[in-house]
Amino acid sequence: MLSKSQIKLITRLKQKKHRILDGFFIAEGIKVINELLESSLELHHLFTTQIFKSHTKNETIITEVELKKISFLTTPNKALAIFKIPSPKAIDAKGLIVALDSVRDPGNLGTIIRLCDWFGIKELVCSKETVDCYNPKVIQATMGSITRVNISYLDLHTFLAEAKTPIFGAFMDGKNIYKSELPKEGIIIMGNEANGISEALEKQVKKRIAIPRFGDLQATESLNVATATAILLSEFKRG
Amino acid sequence: MLSKSQIKLITRLKQKKHRILDGFFIAEGIKVINELLESSLELHHLFTTQIFKSHTKNETIITEVELKKISFLTTPNKALAIFKIPSPKAIDAKGLIVALDSVRDPGNLGTIIRLCDWFGIKELVCSKETVDCYNPKVIQATMGSITRVNISYLDLHTFLAEAKTPIFGAFMDGKNIYKSELPKEGIIIMGNEANGISEALEKQVKKRIAIPRFGDLQATESLNVATATAILLSEFKRG
Repeated sequence: MLSKSQIKLITRLKQKKHRILDGFFIAEGIKVINELLESSLELHHLFTTQIFKSHTKNETIITEVELKKISFLTTPNKALAIFKIPSPKAIDAKGLIVALDSVRDPGNLGTIIRLCDWFGIKELVCSKETVDCYNPKVIQATMGSITRVNISYLDLHTFLAEAKTPIFGAFMDGKNIYKSELPKEGIIIMGNEANGISEALEKQVKKRIAIPRFGDLQATESLNVATATAILLSEFKRG
Repeated sequence: MLSKSQIKLITRLKQKKHRILDGFFIAEGIKVINELLESSLELHHLFTTQIFKSHTKNETIITEVELKKISFLTTPNKALAIFKIPSPKAIDAKGLIVALDSVRDPGNLGTIIRLCDWFGIKELVCSKETVDCYNPKVIQATMGSITRVNISYLDLHTFLAEAKTPIFGAFMDGKNIYKSELPKEGIIIMGNEANGISEALEKQVKKRIAIPRFGDLQATESLNVATATAILLSEFKRG
């Protein structure tokens, strides 16, 4: 049975300002919740229509109708959990780092977090204009990868100014990545969906790279930011 | 001014069965519509809140309020157009072909069409269970690339049985793509978001390949189908 105050809390957490104030975020679905339960994240409360594999004391059994009421998904998936937002961890500046300059689409951020996890990228740094990684749509798209990538929101300009490893950015006029020497350490900046890398940050890019286009002259001018990240990380890692 | 019958037609076109019956699909936004107008597609009618760059005779100027009424987008973008669905073209079996086995998410299909365009893949073949490429969300995600890729819906099993080029499929136990000889001709099968390549089609795969995972043992088990397509096409094309 759901209480009014529980419904109110869940509804509030759709908004970033309330997530920051309350210190909680929402995850939905058995697979995602199980991944988060197995991590170091702290569960606040679990609402579920069935006894959960990882049985917890902060658990309330609810009906499908109640789940539909609180779910942010169009097709709710058996459970909804409230987790505590963890304290930010210090950035380990070694190795490869992905930096996002105002990526706005939650699906894109979620996919990029999953890509970082796949390719063993431990650090993802985001400009403050980048969509919040605790947005429910991001959490769903990460499929649990959010627990394995350290995500920091910061002033990207300052971060890059202090960086000690080479800074890469993808531009149409950059050097063909398939013919570039790509190091094991560095920062790869990915830009906003509509505008790419902002002018201020472009000046900080030391290595301009490009993903060659094989289609004819009429072909699409650009790739989606998540698919471009996939191709770049594959190139950096393949050796 | 919008007529009642126009509103009715547009609303109908949200559903695949009506798109098939009526032979029309919807595109929205200046950029996408302009790309389609510049292609060989035939415009049926354009509804716009401003005089359009490519001025056409089948044009109706409407208000923002009217656009909001007919738009499928949460933030309508200045124009909505109805285009005729073109007749299917014969498949050119030479070169690289991407084959989709029950890809269900419109965003994923749209992104894959855009990737085919970028990498110069002319033929995309889809199982009949794959989401319709004239779904409004697919059209928006392709950003106009749909005019440059020939998309066919067919019985994938029969198509593969008759194929004369090597058939590739990505599996966890496949051969490392970074160490595989990848030919200029072939068919790359991409599977469903939740279930991968179906068992029936798996038997038709001649070359099992894998995208290596660099994250640790706990890392995500799989990549999103659109990002996996991005990495595979990049590997096939980079030479």
